[in-house]
Amino acid sequence: MSTKQDEELAQERLIDLAAEFYDQFESGDIPTMEIPTRTKTNIVFDEDSEVWVYGDRTSTRSANSVRGARKLLKAAYTIEFLVDQLEEDRSSTLRELYYLSESWDNEEAQFSGQDESNQLVEDLEIVSQVTREDFHMRPEESGATLMGPLELREQTRRGERAIHCQMDVGEGGYQIPNNPDTIDFLDHEIDFVLCVETGGMRDRLIENGFDDMYDCLIVHLKGQPARATRRITKRLHDELTVPVVVFTDGDPWSYRIYGSVAYGSIKSAHLSEYLATPEARFIGIQPTDIVEYELPTDPLADSDINALESELEDPRFQSDYWTEQIELQLDIEKKAEQQSLASRGLDFVTETYLPERLDDMGVL
Amino acid sequence: MSTKQDEELAQERLIDLAAEFYDQFESGDIPTMEIPTRTKTNIVFDEDSEVWVYGDRTSTRSANSVRGARKLLKAAYTIEFLVDQLEEDRSSTLRELYYLSESWDNEEAQFSGQDESNQLVEDLEIVSQVTREDFHMRPEESGATLMGPLELREQTRRGERAIHCQMDVGEGGYQIPNNPDTIDFLDHEIDFVLCVETGGMRDRLIENGFDDMYDCLIVHLKGQPARATRRITKRLHDELTVPVVVFTDGDPWSYRIYGSVAYGSIKSAHLSEYLATPEARFIGIQPTDIVEYELPTDPLADSDINALESELEDPRFQSDYWTEQIELQLDIEKKAEQQSLASRGLDFVTETYLPERLDDMGVL
Repeated sequence: MSTKQDEELAQERLIDLAAEFYDQFESGDIPTMEIPTRTKTNIVFDEDSEVWVYGDRTSTRSANSVRGARKLLKAAYTIEFLVDQLEEDRSSTLRELYYLSESWDNEEAQFSGQDESNQLVEDLEIVSQVTREDFHMRPEESGATLMGPLELREQTRRGERAIHCQMDVGEGGYQIPNNPDTIDFLDHEIDFVLCVETGGMRDRLIENGFDDMYDCLIVHLKGQPARATRRITKRLHDELTVPVVVFTDGDPWSYRIYGSVAYGSIKSAHLSEYLATPEARFIGIQPTDIVEYELPTDPLADSDINALESELEDPRFQSDYWTEQIELQLDIEKKAEQQSLASRGLDFVTETYLPERLDDMGVL
Repeated sequence: MSTKQDEELAQERLIDLAAEFYDQFESGDIPTMEIPTRTKTNIVFDEDSEVWVYGDRTSTRSANSVRGARKLLKAAYTIEFLVDQLEEDRSSTLRELYYLSESWDNEEAQFSGQDESNQLVEDLEIVSQVTREDFHMRPEESGATLMGPLELREQTRRGERAIHCQMDVGEGGYQIPNNPDTIDFLDHEIDFVLCVETGGMRDRLIENGFDDMYDCLIVHLKGQPARATRRITKRLHDELTVPVVVFTDGDPWSYRIYGSVAYGSIKSAHLSEYLATPEARFIGIQPTDIVEYELPTDPLADSDINALESELEDPRFQSDYWTEQIELQLDIEKKAEQQSLASRGLDFVTETYLPERLDDMGVL
């Protein structure tokens, strides 16, 4: 991965944007910036790439009102900040950008709230078609951890680090950096990637040596996964050509976690091709498992039922498999956590459940 | 740290507990278990050790009612499970214990909810005077990360790992394992430990090379710190004899984060001597900083005001320093995040703010 190149592209695209404003001024036009409309109604599920993308509708930010002019002024200041940041090989968080604007010499350019600066950076991502990471904007919280037979090289500010994700790390595993595109995969013996929702289950798999026994890389999702976690999952799939399976609880929120790994989320639809792994398959607790294994359950709450019903309408879940599972769950009115497999003993998940599911899927 | 010894002690204490029930039965007494009353009114601030501890009041669990007998039955089953787990050198999470009880042969011994099993394990911690970690009960979510000039050795299930927390890790740092007592400190050049509340600020300090420039170990707290994070902070302080400072936002919730690192929390008062670092000092955003540096602020919400008022009554905050700061904050009605220091430039925190505060405190 040549991030240097991506960064130069980011810089170039940002300067192009500013140059466009300049040209518009020079030719006597009112400066404008056109971006895809970012509302729910303008998100479509792209059948070919199987991810969420923006539709055809666009909105125009124009300097023909004071409010619009102020927005473009803020964009210009932010572009200057980002270009300088890239020039100096530095980085910052969205929150720092918001606070930093207080030091700008033009009060009109200062952000009035963090929502405004966050949205502007997303707009710039979309218009410039490079990612926030390439602007060197860091998230507030970092990605999760990896454990398995993978050797990688991370390009850090302090030099390169070669790390084997079993031999060179403690039981906590390798901490994914904010921008996983600073990583090169050097060598591996991975047969598949297993993304795991909860820390308790991740630790169970490590303790039972599942990564070692089945040559898999265990990616801890930590609930709804951070961008860095989704990005590295996609890169592992594409670059190492290995299957990805997603192991979650058996409830509608966990199906959404799977959905965001596999198909992207509405909030980051402009990044689906960068973050989503449509080939990822679901190996989480299925409503049929609840019935078959008589797992300990909790009753569905009203919010669970609503979420399941909206998933029945969600293009990401329009398959016979999902329709059947979701309808069964609405019928039995129960949900189960992945750790409920412990009701059949602490080794059931690694000795029986996962091997059987993986075998059924043709992964083993 | 000899964890083997701690585990043997844990096993011994658990068996003693079960033996006590046995003896009570044999001598014709109704079995009972006595534990400190775990309500807010029985928590006292111990002036000598400067941490929260339980007071003198105790409650008795007795088998003289069906309900009481069932509680002791569950305790006996849990003790057997924990002793076996230690015997086999395995571990599990609180959630797994709850689910696992479904496989026990006596239905009366099965837990009716996770609250019940969680509370029983805490009771056993208190009565046996060993920690959950020594029972090999893992938390659901793991600790945070370390970065700085420290070389450590972690005893993992797969052998020993020697790791330098700058040279052998990526930018994400070293991931603290669930039980940090598996770590030995080998070598270090640490002058002080800097615990940081937010990921954004942690990354700022790493990017600016603060750990390198000032020979400090940066501990990411990730909000309210996990037990593992508090435990390793205490061990670093005690074993390396280095000062600990805690860098947080400037609001009542962040003062509580500092309070839990320094003085322990009400929920884990029985563990204060194991987890709390009373010598830890506050280097977070102070209300006087908000005034002095004209930091960007948010207005106090009603819940903030209530929390500040209750801190004025909290024995942990009974010093002139805290009284002055909290009263000032109630007066100005404002709070500020640690990242708001970016309003004075991205390097202000590492070049000016922290060095000045550390110098004032006599740490530098």
